[in-house]
Amino acid sequence: MSRRFSRPRLSPRVRAWLVGGALLLAGYGLGRAQPILFRPPLVPGQDAVTDAASREARVTLERVGGPVLNIEPAQGPARLLLVFYPGGLVRPQAYEWLGRALAAQGVQTVIPAFPLDLAVTAPNRAGALIEHYAQGRPVVLAGHSLGGAMAAQYAAGHAGQLAGLVLMAAYPAGNVSLKGQSLPTLSLLAEHDRVAAPDAVRGGLARLPDGAALTVIPGAVHAFFGRYGPQRGDGVPTVSRAQAEGDMLRAITGFLAALEGATPAQR
Amino acid sequence: MSRRFSRPRLSPRVRAWLVGGALLLAGYGLGRAQPILFRPPLVPGQDAVTDAASREARVTLERVGGPVLNIEPAQGPARLLLVFYPGGLVRPQAYEWLGRALAAQGVQTVIPAFPLDLAVTAPNRAGALIEHYAQGRPVVLAGHSLGGAMAAQYAAGHAGQLAGLVLMAAYPAGNVSLKGQSLPTLSLLAEHDRVAAPDAVRGGLARLPDGAALTVIPGAVHAFFGRYGPQRGDGVPTVSRAQAEGDMLRAITGFLAALEGATPAQR
Repeated sequence: MSRRFSRPRLSPRVRAWLVGGALLLAGYGLGRAQPILFRPPLVPGQDAVTDAASREARVTLERVGGPVLNIEPAQGPARLLLVFYPGGLVRPQAYEWLGRALAAQGVQTVIPAFPLDLAVTAPNRAGALIEHYAQGRPVVLAGHSLGGAMAAQYAAGHAGQLAGLVLMAAYPAGNVSLKGQSLPTLSLLAEHDRVAAPDAVRGGLARLPDGAALTVIPGAVHAFFGRYGPQRGDGVPTVSRAQAEGDMLRAITGFLAALEGATPAQR
Repeated sequence: MSRRFSRPRLSPRVRAWLVGGALLLAGYGLGRAQPILFRPPLVPGQDAVTDAASREARVTLERVGGPVLNIEPAQGPARLLLVFYPGGLVRPQAYEWLGRALAAQGVQTVIPAFPLDLAVTAPNRAGALIEHYAQGRPVVLAGHSLGGAMAAQYAAGHAGQLAGLVLMAAYPAGNVSLKGQSLPTLSLLAEHDRVAAPDAVRGGLARLPDGAALTVIPGAVHAFFGRYGPQRGDGVPTVSRAQAEGDMLRAITGFLAALEGATPAQR
């Protein structure tokens, strides 16, 4: 063997330091990733009650292509199905308050738990949920933040299959457009949102169907759409969470009512 | 040299594996510890508004032996100073809602940020805060969870210096007793708390001053005392956060009013 090939490029000491550093870094990455890889438990009812009516809803944890929170009116079947995609790294129960509030108005809401709580891992999850839960009723797809972007993506790929789309602090990705679809769409913008920039949400209107309505929730922030606590980098709200939730609920209820007036049940 | 001493106990291969494993583990520990060592920013007003009156309070971020949120009535000086110790790993702004609500009733609240957000790192922090802020007015010390335990410990070591003590989902440590002190004390227990076990909170009454009052907040959970979101392992609430906050506020307001009736200003 010639010396050229037997001589290592790096001295053993340097190699040891490099391998040691890489191991330290790998361990650090694992430690940082652990809370993302191992999500907190899915606990129905964690912080979901608003008033006596919302306490009445029937909430069950089911499995339809993965875990899903199913929230139904206490009395009789719902007229309409809402499929809700949570925001990134947010557990489904953070939006149970909305499902419970809508149940009092005859709406069924199903909120899937995505792998890693990232809707981007399965943006077409709505398909199996609609097949299982819709039973001929009109379906509205909704989502918060990353979940809203994925809801818009699903809607873009399934023209004519939804009765409505609700985006909360969200907008379609730059390469996704629903322009030209006749899909009734509501876009909710929290006035002091600093996570989904208001300009980006407004800009997203250009890629939503004609007639998409933007409703501003006064004084609200990004983290007020779900009950998961404050969010780093978010703005400072100037109203109570309860008031913001009331405004969101009124906007969504009005949108659904207009929808039901225009869309007869498809049974 | 004899071979006995020059021969390593472990082969180089085994040593390399051990060192590598230790580095991986150390990195993992650093990754896990990072969110605890580097706390989220202290943001006044993050989720602190309840109604129009609470929006009026003056809130400033000051430094008195470390950062402290100072919450004062908009009109004129307060009659009473409340020093509040946050729960473990909870940022001070999670309790700003309480300070703002009390400000509308003429109470000043100061909430220190502890190193690592652990009151156990500086249980006597109240001393400097009282010296700086009390200015002859009666002082009530309060705390949530770990912060409550540390508040009780401070009270035990400073008999006669406080006008009152408020524990929220908290109790004195087993080796701390305020028995025999004539300190008016209120202990708040969340009915469905599963973090501070209700039995432990009730049991703690035996180490509180005679006449300490226990008030149960119906339907509430551990995480309803502060606005920091849901807490892993906590119980399931049966009331809204807003209703629980109202019940807490009424209990504290009633306690402070009784106190002020009994304790003239010490100026």
